[in-house]
Amino acid sequence: MAYVEKSSFERDMNYIPDRITAEPGKSRDTLAHQGVAGPDVEHTTWPVEPGRYRLVAAKACPWANRAIIVRALLGLQDVISLGMPGPTHDERSWTFDLDPGGVDPVLGYERLQQAYFERIPDYPRGITVPAMVDVPSKAVVTNDFPWITHDLFFEWTEHHKEGAPDLWPAEVREEMETVMKRVFTEVNNGVYRCGFAGTQEAYEDAYDRLWTAMDWLEERLSDRRYLMGDAITEADVRLFTTLARFDAVYHGHFKCNRQKLTELPALWGYARDLYSIPEFGENTDFEQIKQHYYVVHKDVNPTGIVPKGPDPAVWLEPHDRASLG
Amino acid sequence: MAYVEKSSFERDMNYIPDRITAEPGKSRDTLAHQGVAGPDVEHTTWPVEPGRYRLVAAKACPWANRAIIVRALLGLQDVISLGMPGPTHDERSWTFDLDPGGVDPVLGYERLQQAYFERIPDYPRGITVPAMVDVPSKAVVTNDFPWITHDLFFEWTEHHKEGAPDLWPAEVREEMETVMKRVFTEVNNGVYRCGFAGTQEAYEDAYDRLWTAMDWLEERLSDRRYLMGDAITEADVRLFTTLARFDAVYHGHFKCNRQKLTELPALWGYARDLYSIPEFGENTDFEQIKQHYYVVHKDVNPTGIVPKGPDPAVWLEPHDRASLG
Repeated sequence: MAYVEKSSFERDMNYIPDRITAEPGKSRDTLAHQGVAGPDVEHTTWPVEPGRYRLVAAKACPWANRAIIVRALLGLQDVISLGMPGPTHDERSWTFDLDPGGVDPVLGYERLQQAYFERIPDYPRGITVPAMVDVPSKAVVTNDFPWITHDLFFEWTEHHKEGAPDLWPAEVREEMETVMKRVFTEVNNGVYRCGFAGTQEAYEDAYDRLWTAMDWLEERLSDRRYLMGDAITEADVRLFTTLARFDAVYHGHFKCNRQKLTELPALWGYARDLYSIPEFGENTDFEQIKQHYYVVHKDVNPTGIVPKGPDPAVWLEPHDRASLG
Repeated sequence: MAYVEKSSFERDMNYIPDRITAEPGKSRDTLAHQGVAGPDVEHTTWPVEPGRYRLVAAKACPWANRAIIVRALLGLQDVISLGMPGPTHDERSWTFDLDPGGVDPVLGYERLQQAYFERIPDYPRGITVPAMVDVPSKAVVTNDFPWITHDLFFEWTEHHKEGAPDLWPAEVREEMETVMKRVFTEVNNGVYRCGFAGTQEAYEDAYDRLWTAMDWLEERLSDRRYLMGDAITEADVRLFTTLARFDAVYHGHFKCNRQKLTELPALWGYARDLYSIPEFGENTDFEQIKQHYYVVHKDVNPTGIVPKGPDPAVWLEPHDRASLG
């Protein structure tokens, strides 16, 4: 993700708007779209085609982590490959520093920026993850993160594993859009608004907004196993990747410190419940998460020293949430 | 307090070594001295004299906070006055910015530095609190913090309030010196060693040392109401002022984040037990504490933004420690 710094933090939401779709010519102006990514924009549709695309997604990044989890929940690992940049990046790009020789083995790139430049020479915006890359042309198709997970569900249906979860149940769809919008503006983005505030006043406003939303979620989850009821949906994936980073990073580094996640019984039980599912837990890497934020944000943490705590063993404690669902 | 920055943090322990004593010519080479402030040094003794001295101590500073609490526990408020600099200071000095006109009403100073210069022109070391100041000459007598509280107890006995606690009980004195030494090097100073580490390795060593000591204290306090048993001693004052800052500052700002204090049942109950005593609780100011660290340490927190959390209301929860003592 990229961001624009101001006294009040605002996220740059301009992405490469293409979609990968089962049928050509699909609009972006659908219900799914409302409250997710602004008005329709000119875009191209690319065909669903097993083996053709590579999802480039760093485990460290909450927005990329969503796509990794959704791909796994839907069983798309054999049809969409995964490239994983390391947790830190420089001013210009995420890099494939975890791969042998520092090169992505499929794309042959050292820097994700190369895939952006292959699509748009001198691409002027942030080099963000997740990015879907067309392997034949080695060019980015889209980095529009809410659409990437949306389309993994709606457009790749034919390739989902048997018994894949219904992440967008039609019967709760409308309420789910409202919940996801509030989670996005107030929580997913709310923690960044705290951490990147340029003034004490902007920070305090951001903190109050965040905790108003956290209290709403704590109450909502006190009698619901998951955000939309008894089954996991896309809304849970989107909340989970922020919760997984809360005590490790946002609490201290972003000063979201009214309480730790571990001090909010419903949210903490909910987070552990999700973490116990392999597609969530195995794709959550607390060390990469801490490395990313504490090393990359030199303006917040000039020494670059990464805290040793907190102990992630608490994530394995029983959650006792099954009685709710 | 002043500090010297290196890859591993070392505290500058060179203070103005004078003492205020009931009888003249007292040495610094006593049992009390062992493990507290190094070998004997040339010094002057000043006479105990009600109304003559002013304790200058910022509530924000843990070392100064000790002296404020001991003065109150012993009931010395009427014989030693208290000057209180504000929570923040610049490179040169603590300042009396909370006083009307920004001037200490007894000394007439804007900056504590003036009292140091009155004693030693161009005093080259840190302008630290606590400092005992001779009011007639407006000059610092001593800023040697472990000796200041020691002498408030042993030398001002005649002026203690009736029923003042025995903060240095003879029967546990030897063990108490050992406990205080470990608390000083591993905890009081250990949190600074984490926060001011210049390298990842120095930080990780400091973190491990701190938590080894915190685990020792947690165990020690699981079957003792106070550090030395059933009664409050100087050792408790010294540990308390670090614990009071733990979640508000050290956990995030100094990266001492294995757990919060609130997650360590014995230490947290112990801290609330002490906080419920007016001499401790009323002299603990979480806002000043946060202001101090987050504003003064620009190298750790360049924005100077002060976190809103954590909520100090938890300090008022019942502690249930009375059954131990």
